[in-house]
Amino acid sequence: MKLGFIGTGVMGGPIAQHLLDAGNELYVYNRTKAKTDSLVANGATFEDTPAQIAQQANIIFSMVGYPSDVEAIYFGEEGIFSRLTAGKIVVDMTTSTPTLAVKIADAAKKMGAAALDAPVSGGDVGAQNATLTVMVGGDQETYERVKPLFEKVGQSVHLFGEAGKGQHTKMANQIMIAGTMTGTVEMMVYAQHAGLNMTDVLATLSSGGAANWSMANYAPRILKGDYTPGFFAKHFLKDLRIALDEADKMHLKLPATALAKQLYETMVDDKQLGDDGTQGLIKIYENM
Amino acid sequence: MKLGFIGTGVMGGPIAQHLLDAGNELYVYNRTKAKTDSLVANGATFEDTPAQIAQQANIIFSMVGYPSDVEAIYFGEEGIFSRLTAGKIVVDMTTSTPTLAVKIADAAKKMGAAALDAPVSGGDVGAQNATLTVMVGGDQETYERVKPLFEKVGQSVHLFGEAGKGQHTKMANQIMIAGTMTGTVEMMVYAQHAGLNMTDVLATLSSGGAANWSMANYAPRILKGDYTPGFFAKHFLKDLRIALDEADKMHLKLPATALAKQLYETMVDDKQLGDDGTQGLIKIYENM
Repeated sequence: MKLGFIGTGVMGGPIAQHLLDAGNELYVYNRTKAKTDSLVANGATFEDTPAQIAQQANIIFSMVGYPSDVEAIYFGEEGIFSRLTAGKIVVDMTTSTPTLAVKIADAAKKMGAAALDAPVSGGDVGAQNATLTVMVGGDQETYERVKPLFEKVGQSVHLFGEAGKGQHTKMANQIMIAGTMTGTVEMMVYAQHAGLNMTDVLATLSSGGAANWSMANYAPRILKGDYTPGFFAKHFLKDLRIALDEADKMHLKLPATALAKQLYETMVDDKQLGDDGTQGLIKIYENM
Repeated sequence: MKLGFIGTGVMGGPIAQHLLDAGNELYVYNRTKAKTDSLVANGATFEDTPAQIAQQANIIFSMVGYPSDVEAIYFGEEGIFSRLTAGKIVVDMTTSTPTLAVKIADAAKKMGAAALDAPVSGGDVGAQNATLTVMVGGDQETYERVKPLFEKVGQSVHLFGEAGKGQHTKMANQIMIAGTMTGTVEMMVYAQHAGLNMTDVLATLSSGGAANWSMANYAPRILKGDYTPGFFAKHFLKDLRIALDEADKMHLKLPATALAKQLYETMVDDKQLGDDGTQGLIKIYENM
């Protein structure tokens, strides 16, 4: 199959490699060309613009940074839609806005093409090990055509409804994690100041009603002073902003999520710690 | 062994029964006498005051509602300390303040007795099935003497340090749960308004980085409209107030926990829903 992949960074790179390994013909584009080098060495073809990717490939994947980047690669001058033709499929795997996902799907439909939104969770490790969770929005028929490709990179792949529903599911996921992250960090700040043995506390809390993935994975890293990103704080902040914008459009108030966003703003914008992992949030509590 | 148990409610009742089943001589007191009836029918002896319990028993357990109740049964006119003698042990299993736990330990020590603070997690089901988590503070020697009794009711029993450290560990547990509960509730509010299939969302979120005990246990109950208490909202609010008071004494700011407390105040104080379970928090989002 002729596939395109736009955005071959820490997430997109390994995903593209899995698609290549599965025997597909792969056309790649990345703003920083060097990040496509290993894929090209393994047989992929570099193209100079998203438009050329859209011309060469039948199914075009994208995984870039921010919704503004998605907007640019789809609707920009040398963007995908400048060259997309009927029968092709675009798949945005960026965590982006449900609203933009609907806009892309509408634009694709108008030219006889189709679109899926397919954000993932599971991080760089999940991308490397092909154990991602893929949350898909779009029509059933298009989903069925792309599903075998998703299954090359994900162990949990599910269609949540029409365009935008994949992004909405990812937002629900991030809202949940806002709670487990702020809880984990504040629990640790309290327990450390109370003079508790953290290893004992974590063992006990993990065995009961307080158990959660964030605590299990990030609390031990914090104890070792390891703030390297499993997931970049700046990207999590982006996600929370999207979630709250969408909530606002639905006339919903989510005060705990809004507070988590404020705390990550302090970390990312004020303290310039956006390249730390999400567990670095604990640093803002030092002189709070 | 001659044991005393003060406060034989939804938690204390089953715990006292396990201690009785283990072959101990049991003296019981409860403000509402009827709640001791089944224990008395099974061989326990009712006493009219905490003071008389302290006189009859060598190890006296207490599990009541609020710190003010703990204060009353220990330091009140017919309280435990009016009749406690050297060599005896008092064990407060109420979730109460670390500060009060230290005060009780100091008072016990002055009369040649000893004290443990030993709050639990695991709820009424844990109490019935003897699968509680017991978080203990006090000296090692006293702990070793009472440990075999804790093991009759708990599957995870641990000494976290001197007096007050059991309560501090329980506070850490509740701070963590404040995050998982607000996150679970706001995730559900968002996902439901976004028109997602909640069963699918929960299955997907549970398999990744958003996974947590509160979501796994309470989200399905919310979907069924089941707000019966696994844990009373009014008691959780009490715990969050204690946690934040203690944080304040340590000059710590815990903004996410403080917000969770505010949200539970809206539920318990403004909406009078304190007898619902903690999952009832979602009701305050309806017209927020």
